[in-house]
Amino acid sequence: MIKKANIPEITQKHLHGIKNLSIEDINKILELSNFFKLKNREKDKNYPILKGRTIINLFFEPSTRTLISFEIAAKRLGADVINMNIEGSSLRKGESLHDTAQTLGAMNPDLVVIRHGIDNASKQISEIINCPVINAGEGINEHPTQALLDAYTIVDNKRSLKNITVAICGDLEHSRVARSNYYLLKKMESNVRFVYPEFFKPKDLNRYDVETYTNLEEGITGTDIVMMLRIQNERITDTNLPSKESYFEEFGLTYEKLKLANPDALVLHPGPINRNVEIEDRLADDLDKSVINEQVENGVAVRMACLSIMVK
Amino acid sequence: MIKKANIPEITQKHLHGIKNLSIEDINKILELSNFFKLKNREKDKNYPILKGRTIINLFFEPSTRTLISFEIAAKRLGADVINMNIEGSSLRKGESLHDTAQTLGAMNPDLVVIRHGIDNASKQISEIINCPVINAGEGINEHPTQALLDAYTIVDNKRSLKNITVAICGDLEHSRVARSNYYLLKKMESNVRFVYPEFFKPKDLNRYDVETYTNLEEGITGTDIVMMLRIQNERITDTNLPSKESYFEEFGLTYEKLKLANPDALVLHPGPINRNVEIEDRLADDLDKSVINEQVENGVAVRMACLSIMVK
Amino acid sequence: MIKKANIPEITQKHLHGIKNLSIEDINKILELSNFFKLKNREKDKNYPILKGRTIINLFFEPSTRTLISFEIAAKRLGADVINMNIEGSSLRKGESLHDTAQTLGAMNPDLVVIRHGIDNASKQISEIINCPVINAGEGINEHPTQALLDAYTIVDNKRSLKNITVAICGDLEHSRVARSNYYLLKKMESNVRFVYPEFFKPKDLNRYDVETYTNLEEGITGTDIVMMLRIQNERITDTNLPSKESYFEEFGLTYEKLKLANPDALVLHPGPINRNVEIEDRLADDLDKSVINEQVENGVAVRMACLSIMVK
Repeated sequence: MIKKANIPEITQKHLHGIKNLSIEDINKILELSNFFKLKNREKDKNYPILKGRTIINLFFEPSTRTLISFEIAAKRLGADVINMNIEGSSLRKGESLHDTAQTLGAMNPDLVVIRHGIDNASKQISEIINCPVINAGEGINEHPTQALLDAYTIVDNKRSLKNITVAICGDLEHSRVARSNYYLLKKMESNVRFVYPEFFKPKDLNRYDVETYTNLEEGITGTDIVMMLRIQNERITDTNLPSKESYFEEFGLTYEKLKLANPDALVLHPGPINRNVEIEDRLADDLDKSVINEQVENGVAVRMACLSIMVK
Repeated sequence: MIKKANIPEITQKHLHGIKNLSIEDINKILELSNFFKLKNREKDKNYPILKGRTIINLFFEPSTRTLISFEIAAKRLGADVINMNIEGSSLRKGESLHDTAQTLGAMNPDLVVIRHGIDNASKQISEIINCPVINAGEGINEHPTQALLDAYTIVDNKRSLKNITVAICGDLEHSRVARSNYYLLKKMESNVRFVYPEFFKPKDLNRYDVETYTNLEEGITGTDIVMMLRIQNERITDTNLPSKESYFEEFGLTYEKLKLANPDALVLHPGPINRNVEIEDRLADDLDKSVINEQVENGVAVRMACLSIMVK
Repeated sequence: MIKKANIPEITQKHLHGIKNLSIEDINKILELSNFFKLKNREKDKNYPILKGRTIINLFFEPSTRTLISFEIAAKRLGADVINMNIEGSSLRKGESLHDTAQTLGAMNPDLVVIRHGIDNASKQISEIINCPVINAGEGINEHPTQALLDAYTIVDNKRSLKNITVAICGDLEHSRVARSNYYLLKKMESNVRFVYPEFFKPKDLNRYDVETYTNLEEGITGTDIVMMLRIQNERITDTNLPSKESYFEEFGLTYEKLKLANPDALVLHPGPINRNVEIEDRLADDLDKSVINEQVENGVAVRMACLSIMVK
């Protein structure tokens, strides 16, 4: 049996993004996540500090893995969990978000987790609903719990984020994962690189204080962390993309290319992986190099920490 | 912390409709709802009197808001809740209802909540399943928990249902909400008006002892409650309907028209709203006039009351 | 109130199929099921020995009744239950199974229940996930909990499986239910007959030590148990099948044909029934002959037994 958790206070009422978090906030979340990671490895995974609370997972985009991660997190904390899966396409998004938020808000939830296709959904809904809101991925803006679990995974393996060099590689244009990681890593004084093929050049590149590379080999040379992004096919409207084979050839991570990174470099990916597109099949499963499974495990712990802290 | 609830007995084993309830039954449900409304505003919303019980939400029609309301209600009462969402269209309804009921009944549920497209589904299923059944909306027959939550909302604001004048407006032809409200309001000695455009004239109008109006302005003049109905597009087979714009023009509720009602008249709507079709956008959100959000909050409380009472 | 259950050990870590179970294993599961059947008829159905545990129902094939049976079973045992419904068709099955298993495994589940279209899914996933796995039906291989609930139902009515004669009738070619029942009944020294029309002759017939019949009347003559199978329309690719009417004529079970079985013969069917195709409508509902509803009730109890035993 493990000891009792100390649930800290942070500066934010909502978890809209990493951008608003202080360095101390981030450290508090990561520390508490550590407690839940250990708890989750015990037989009895219940830590029912949210007993009697109602948490609604409001997902306007399909995302089985993130939804399940939040669902498991909330249940292990003893909360009553309601999943609401709404296919964004069947609704005029602006309207439905407003009315759905109003309806759910009237049911006295203690926290709402939202995933949505538009960039500001988390903030919008928090202005309607009278409870804390956690952004579980919105538009191409932020996905803060993903960045927190990535940070946890890196710290767990590398001890610190300070001064390590992280290459974020692939579909930078459409990636909220990249943006949240950027904000977090910069706050924690990591060196951040954006590595992308020309057709995935982020339109808002001038906002980010990063080294940029359009060649994967160069971009990962000498790095400690190679963070491969998922190609968000569903968001790509431009059809002038290369075939999977030629994308892999140019921008897929292989054992061969990974040799250019530091000898103990780790590979991260937010999942689900497009195998042999973003990463060589065997490399993704190589537990000496890839920490993709650790990311998933840490994800549940980080979300338990966030839920514990945000619910008042 | 609030005091303990006193769970009353009512005359009915099942909640098929308002028609079978006595005045005393209705008053008991509304009184208990009040307890749960307060409980739902506390941090700890659990009142686990249904712990160890199994409640099945059997929905043959999609209805996210009603389903979630029942799901939250059952979970806050500590029950094990099973959601079964069956698309009515994929089954020959009569058959599937029978066999599904038989199967579920064999799993020893303590209560089944049913929503179905046919008028008698709740009664039919109660003859197969050996546990209490709550009708969560069936065909164009009844939707008793909606009428109960509407009644709660009116009493909460107007102290009593007796002698108040209620205009039920819009798609009377297809509305089970209207029918359940009619039965409830007549029992409680309200004055009830049916206000509908000619193309929504109810086919069974001769059953109801109401004043009728085919002009919205006239119909709401001097009323205390203006209850707007949702246009049940999915049930309309006649395509000779006016456009949304001309419907709104003629039968949509606006600030301007609402001036004809009593000065403190309240606007209700069962939701989801077709904005600027049934009600002017801003009016729906105007908390001085519209109690639509209160209806949603009260809905959870009323359903907790019904579940508490019906489960034996 | 009933006494405490004694949760036994069995020889297997996973429940992939009946084939690997010992006679003693089967008897232990059936005995414990009896405890839960009684518990499930009490008001308080909770027996929370899996409190704090996480159970994932991973269903790659739609199967409402089996899913709900497992869901109710797990909830009554106090576990946190996560349902994952994945339409098999939308994924390249081999890949998705592997990656999904890896992801779920990383979330520290205590048990995974899997249903899948391929024959070896349960074993495959158990090699990836570090927790017990229960096969809830895979390909045309096994469906062990169905055979266990059938066995429970037979023993409950006939006292023993030894020396009773069981005719398994219908779509033998595609039936995992038949295969699991075959293994179980042979272990328990029942006499097993396969009764099928020529077009449903199992391709692997030479594996089974059974009497075979291609005429239903002959096949059920003198039997104690007539187990009708569901026609697995979704798996049939050969379109040279007879019409429903002529199938019923030739291979449907009627009161008339049932007279050829022993006087107290019982009718089983795994459900859902195709009425007047596999079984005469009224016969399916005749509680003197048909134990189909008992099968469903026993299914929940058997699954509670399996979950209790398998979770470590």
